[in-house]
Amino acid sequence: MAPPWVEKAPQPGTFRSIFKWGAKDRFKHPNPGFLRVIADALGLTKADFKAPSRLGDAVIENRAAFRLSSEDAAAFSAIVGPDNCFSDTYARLAAATGKSMEDILNLRAGRIENIPDLVLHPRNRGEIEAIVRLCHDKGIPLHVTGGGSSVTQGLACPRGGVSLVMTTHMNRVLEFNETNQTITVEPGLMGPAYEELLNRAPETFKADRRYTGGHFPQSFEFSSVGGWVVTLGSGQASSYYGDAGDLVLAQDYVTPTGSFKTLDFPATATGPKVNDIMKGSEGCFGVLTALTLKIFPYFPDAVRPFAFMFRSFGEAVTAARRISQTGSGLPAVFRISDPEETDIAMKMYGLEGSLPDRFMRLRGLSPGSRCIVMGRTEGEPSFSKNLFRRVKKTGKENKGLYLTGYPMKKWQAGRFSDPYMRDALNDFGVLIDTLEAGVTWDHVEDLYQGVRAHVKQTPGVILMSHASHFYPQGTNLYFIFITKMMGLANSRPFRPGSSKKSWNTTVPSATTTAWAGCWPPSWKPTSAKNRWMCSGP
Amino acid sequence: MAPPWVEKAPQPGTFRSIFKWGAKDRFKHPNPGFLRVIADALGLTKADFKAPSRLGDAVIENRAAFRLSSEDAAAFSAIVGPDNCFSDTYARLAAATGKSMEDILNLRAGRIENIPDLVLHPRNRGEIEAIVRLCHDKGIPLHVTGGGSSVTQGLACPRGGVSLVMTTHMNRVLEFNETNQTITVEPGLMGPAYEELLNRAPETFKADRRYTGGHFPQSFEFSSVGGWVVTLGSGQASSYYGDAGDLVLAQDYVTPTGSFKTLDFPATATGPKVNDIMKGSEGCFGVLTALTLKIFPYFPDAVRPFAFMFRSFGEAVTAARRISQTGSGLPAVFRISDPEETDIAMKMYGLEGSLPDRFMRLRGLSPGSRCIVMGRTEGEPSFSKNLFRRVKKTGKENKGLYLTGYPMKKWQAGRFSDPYMRDALNDFGVLIDTLEAGVTWDHVEDLYQGVRAHVKQTPGVILMSHASHFYPQGTNLYFIFITKMMGLANSRPFRPGSSKKSWNTTVPSATTTAWAGCWPPSWKPTSAKNRWMCSGP
Repeated sequence: MAPPWVEKAPQPGTFRSIFKWGAKDRFKHPNPGFLRVIADALGLTKADFKAPSRLGDAVIENRAAFRLSSEDAAAFSAIVGPDNCFSDTYARLAAATGKSMEDILNLRAGRIENIPDLVLHPRNRGEIEAIVRLCHDKGIPLHVTGGGSSVTQGLACPRGGVSLVMTTHMNRVLEFNETNQTITVEPGLMGPAYEELLNRAPETFKADRRYTGGHFPQSFEFSSVGGWVVTLGSGQASSYYGDAGDLVLAQDYVTPTGSFKTLDFPATATGPKVNDIMKGSEGCFGVLTALTLKIFPYFPDAVRPFAFMFRSFGEAVTAARRISQTGSGLPAVFRISDPEETDIAMKMYGLEGSLPDRFMRLRGLSPGSRCIVMGRTEGEPSFSKNLFRRVKKTGKENKGLYLTGYPMKKWQAGRFSDPYMRDALNDFGVLIDTLEAGVTWDHVEDLYQGVRAHVKQTPGVILMSHASHFYPQGTNLYFIFITKMMGLANSRPFRPGSSKKSWNTTVPSATTTAWAGCWPPSWKPTSAKNRWMCSGP
Repeated sequence: MAPPWVEKAPQPGTFRSIFKWGAKDRFKHPNPGFLRVIADALGLTKADFKAPSRLGDAVIENRAAFRLSSEDAAAFSAIVGPDNCFSDTYARLAAATGKSMEDILNLRAGRIENIPDLVLHPRNRGEIEAIVRLCHDKGIPLHVTGGGSSVTQGLACPRGGVSLVMTTHMNRVLEFNETNQTITVEPGLMGPAYEELLNRAPETFKADRRYTGGHFPQSFEFSSVGGWVVTLGSGQASSYYGDAGDLVLAQDYVTPTGSFKTLDFPATATGPKVNDIMKGSEGCFGVLTALTLKIFPYFPDAVRPFAFMFRSFGEAVTAARRISQTGSGLPAVFRISDPEETDIAMKMYGLEGSLPDRFMRLRGLSPGSRCIVMGRTEGEPSFSKNLFRRVKKTGKENKGLYLTGYPMKKWQAGRFSDPYMRDALNDFGVLIDTLEAGVTWDHVEDLYQGVRAHVKQTPGVILMSHASHFYPQGTNLYFIFITKMMGLANSRPFRPGSSKKSWNTTVPSATTTAWAGCWPPSWKPTSAKNRWMCSGP
C-alpha cells in the first residue's frame, strides 16, 4: 500500500505555497524500493505513513508587525511605484524564505520570523540606486532575493528592512556578444530562460551558432543567474565548464558608497581584482545589477554518457582522480556515489535484481561496497570523443566495470526532479538535509570516513555521499542525510548570524546549493491585499 | 662591417654588472637583416654604430647615505646574521634595480637612487616575521625582491628602508604532493630550478611520472616562482596552462598585523577568497613565504608546433579567435605577429628571399601586410593530437597558408635569448621598450590601430606588435618600441609613485612581464666590504 502522498497544488496564500519545492503542480515521491530502504533504516512502519502532517496549509494571516515609518514606506513606494511595493505578510515571508530545512520547518510550524517590512520589485538600476541611497541614509537593512533557492538562510532579514526581488523586472539581456563569446544580463534572469536564450541564439540574437551557459546547479530551474555568481554556485557540469566564479567576467554593482562596474577583459595582471572580490560576496558589499558571463558553443549531439562500477569507494576515488588528471580535459558531468548511495540508486533506477546486477555480483561487485562512477563528456565533438575514449580506457585500467551510458541516462532524467521528493518525505516526518565540502584528493577518504563515522553514531540515519565536482587537485564530498524528525516541538527557530559563512583561510565549505528552491511562487493569490505580482520569465 | 658589439662579461662591482640582462657571459645582437631594418627605420648610419657608449662600466663607489639608526641596523643584522645583512652601495643598488628601461638608463648614467638602506637575506619564515615586526614597530619601509626582473620599477625603495632578498635561502621545496598534483615551495625558487625539479620528479621526488609547472614567462630563466604570483605574470604557454594567477592554490603570508595561510582546496563556495585578494598584490599586504601551485603531467613528445601565414592582421585575428573558441582546448603557445613584426621575424629567421618567401609572395602574402600566426599544442598526447588537427583545419578554413612547424621551432630557439639584444642595442643609443594590454576580441583591431597611429606620429620608431595569450573571450596586445635615445641628458629620474598600478575597474593593464631581468647577479665581487653572497639555485 503506497502512503497517501500529497499530490495536490498548495492553496494560494498558504505557508505550503511558499516552501513547496518547484512547480506548484509537480510532485515526486520515492518509489517502493527506495521507500523500503528509508522505512527499514529509520525504523518506520506503515503507521508512520498513514497520514501526512504539518503540511503548512494554513493561509497566512496578515498580522506581522511593521517597523518602518510611514514616511519611509511611502518613499520606497514612490521609487518603485505602488504596484512593485508589498507590505502584506505573505509577500514578506515569501521574500525571506529559502529552501533550507530550517526554512521549511519554520513554515510548516507556522512561524513568521526574520521577514522584511517591505518587499520591493525594482524596475531598473536607477531605482536600485535610489533604494540603496535611502536605506543608507536612514540605516534601514537591505536584502536581495533572486531565485530564492538559498540553503544557507541567506534570504532571512533578522532586522527587518526591505528586500529587493530581482526576478520580476531585472531579468533582461543587455548585450549578446558573439565575437567575444559573452552575454551581459541582469541578475534576475532565471536559469532556464537564460539557457534557452543561448541554445536558441540563432533565433534570439541572429547568432551564427547555438550556445550554452554551461551552468546547471540542481536548483537550475528555480535559481537566477545573479544568484549563481553572488553565492559562487557550482553546476552539475562544472568539471568542464567551470564553477559560477569561473564564468563571470564582469559585474556591475550599486553600493552605499558609490556604483561601479568591472570591465570584461579576458585577463589582467593587476591585483587584487575587484571582480574577484565581489564574486561570492552574497550581497554584503552591494546590489548586483548586471553581469557579463562566458558562453560556450553548444554541441548537444557530442554528449557521450559513461558509467563504471567499482568494488569499493577507494578504488572509485582512485580511478576518478586518474581520469581528472590525464591532461585531456574533464568530463562535464562526473560523479562518484558511495556504497550507500549506489545501493539506493540501483533501487531507484529499478536495477536491483536485474541481469546486470546479477552479473556484477558474480564479478565481486557486491551491494554494500560497490560504487558507481558516471558522467558524460561534452564540448566540441572531436574533443568529447577523444576524452570519452580516455575516460573509458582509464576507468577500465583502474578496475572499473564499464556499464555503458545507461545509468547516466537514468540520472539525467531525474537530475532536476529528485528535490521534489523532499516535500513528500517531510510530510511524513522524514527529514532530509545536506552538507558539502571541497577536498583535496589526499583527504577524500579521511573526510568521507570521518563524516560517516560521526553521523552513523546516531542510529536511524541514511547517509548518501557523492562527489560531483572534479578538478585535477581534488573534488567535493556531498552528504545527504535522511532521518526521522524528532523533538520538533522544541526545535530552535533560526538565529540571526548563525549561518554566517567563514573565509577560506580556516575551514572547507560548501561548493554548491542543492535541494534548493523556487522563489517567487508562480501564481498570484486572488486577494487584492495579499496580492503577489510575480511575472518573471 | 659589424658594429663592435660588447661581448665581454661586465667587471664585478660595476653598474653594468647589475643591469646587464641574464647570464654575465652570454650575449646576443641583431643579425645583419634585423640591424638593417633598425638602421633604416631610425635613420642611423655606420657612424652611429662606431663605438658603444654609456656602458655603465664604472665601479660603484660606496658612497650612498645611510638613513637607519645604528641600533635598528644592528637589530636587523641580529635577525638574519651578519652574513645575510648588507649595507654597501652595490648591494643596495642591485636590490632596488629591475629591468625597466628607466632602471637601465639610470644605471647607465651612474645614478644611485631609490635604494634601500639595508639588504637582508632571510633564512626562514621566522626571520621574516621578526623583520616585519621590527619594520612595523619602527615605521621602516619594507620591500621584497625575487628574481629582479620587474619592468614596472617594483623594486625601487623611494623612502629607503630594508629590502628582502628571497632567492638566497627562501628557495626550498616544502612539499611535493603527487596525489593532488601540487607542489608547495618557498617563493625564492628560480624558474629553471623549479621546472627541472618537476621534469625530474621521478628522480627528485620518487614520483610516478614527470611533471611541468607550465609557466614560462620570457623572464623564465631569471624570475622566481613567488614573483610570478605576486605580479600575476603570464607565461608563453599560458593559453593551455593558465596565467600565474590560475596556477596558485594557496599562499602563506607574513603581514604587519599577523600571519596566515590560505588552504589548498581545489574550490570553495565562500567569497571573497583571501587567496584571490593576495594574488597580484605585489607585496603591498605582506611578504609571501610559501605557495602551493598546480603541476601538470609532462609530455614533451606530445608537443606539435604549427604556423600559418595570413594576408592581413584582420584575417590573422579572426582565425586565431576561431581557433580559441572551438571548445577543443587551446594551444599552449599561440601567437599572432603583426606585419611589422612578421617582416622582422622573416629577416631574423633568415627566411626573407627564401623559396618559401617567394612562394608566399606569389600567393599574395606580401611583406607589409602578411601576418604570421604560430604556436604549439601540448598536453596529453591524444588531446594534443586532436587539438593540433582542429587548429590546422580551422586555420586553413580561415584563409591561412600552413607553413609547417618550422617558424615555431625558430621562435622556440630564441624564446629566452632575444632579451639579450636589448643591451647590445642600448650600447649604441637604440632604445627598446614595451607596452601591453589585455583586450576582448571585438576591440583588438581598434586597439591595435589606435596604438600604431599614435606611435607612428613620431618618426623613426619601429613598432612590433603581437598577441601571445589567448582566451575564448580575447587576447592581449604586446607592443615593442625601438627608437633612438634622445635628450637623455634631460631625462627624468624615476619618480616614486609614478608606476602605481591601477585597478581593473578602470583601465586595461599589462598581463606579462617581459624584457625582464635577472637578480641577483650570479657572481661575487671580491672586495670583502662590497661582498655579495648570493648562492641561490
